[in-house]
Amino acid sequence: MSAAILPAGIAEAVPFDRDGLVAAIAQQHDSGEVLMLAWMNRESLAETLATGEVCYWSRSRQRLWRKGETSGQRQRLVELRVDCDGDTLLLLVDQSGVACHTGRRNCFFRAWREGRLETIAEVLVDPKTLYGF
Amino acid sequence: MSAAILPAGIAEAVPFDRDGLVAAIAQQHDSGEVLMLAWMNRESLAETLATGEVCYWSRSRQRLWRKGETSGQRQRLVELRVDCDGDTLLLLVDQSGVACHTGRRNCFFRAWREGRLETIAEVLVDPKTLYGF
Repeated sequence: MSAAILPAGIAEAVPFDRDGLVAAIAQQHDSGEVLMLAWMNRESLAETLATGEVCYWSRSRQRLWRKGETSGQRQRLVELRVDCDGDTLLLLVDQSGVACHTGRRNCFFRAWREGRLETIAEVLVDPKTLYGF
Repeated sequence: MSAAILPAGIAEAVPFDRDGLVAAIAQQHDSGEVLMLAWMNRESLAETLATGEVCYWSRSRQRLWRKGETSGQRQRLVELRVDCDGDTLLLLVDQSGVACHTGRRNCFFRAWREGRLETIAEVLVDPKTLYGF
């Protein structure tokens, strides 16, 4: 499916780990909201750069995960940044709808407060609507 | 050294990976700037919660990494958040000085622009000053 080639300038800067992956943080480009962390392999990163639509590697499903392919909640890439040692990417994105599979805007909706995890964000979209089950 | 115990409510929510680690994103609590990504084990997370000063696990040195212990560039924990599946933490912190060992404010100082990685942030503190060599 994907024939995109990873640009040499990125390939040289990113030492993919023993599983061939690199961590990728998605941050909403204008608000600064940290949406999620997921993983990319060479192929998903190449596709993301080629298409401008964020594609991860799903570790649980062991296949390309075109963000929003099922749910419609896509991430448009605004800018890719690489950290000092190349083992983490920061994706500045424009998130359509919600980033989290629970239907919340971002995945970090549990805060440690007064000795317990408190849910601090509401479900904005019913997951049944997102995934059709 | 560290006798802190990980609270049960966190221990239950975080499935540490095969190396006993969990990814931790540090974000400046007020500006939203993503500073860095590092890793925590049970001990470093327990110490972070007990002291309010961020402590990571250094994978390269295989020991606790009390952020700023050498450089003085500490991270005070403002709030800990846990993602939907518990495999990533978001640390809202107050960063003293610079987060990156290169002397830049954050580690994501390279942006992919027009087919090359462009350095987009200045060195604010000479690393020689930070580390004394």
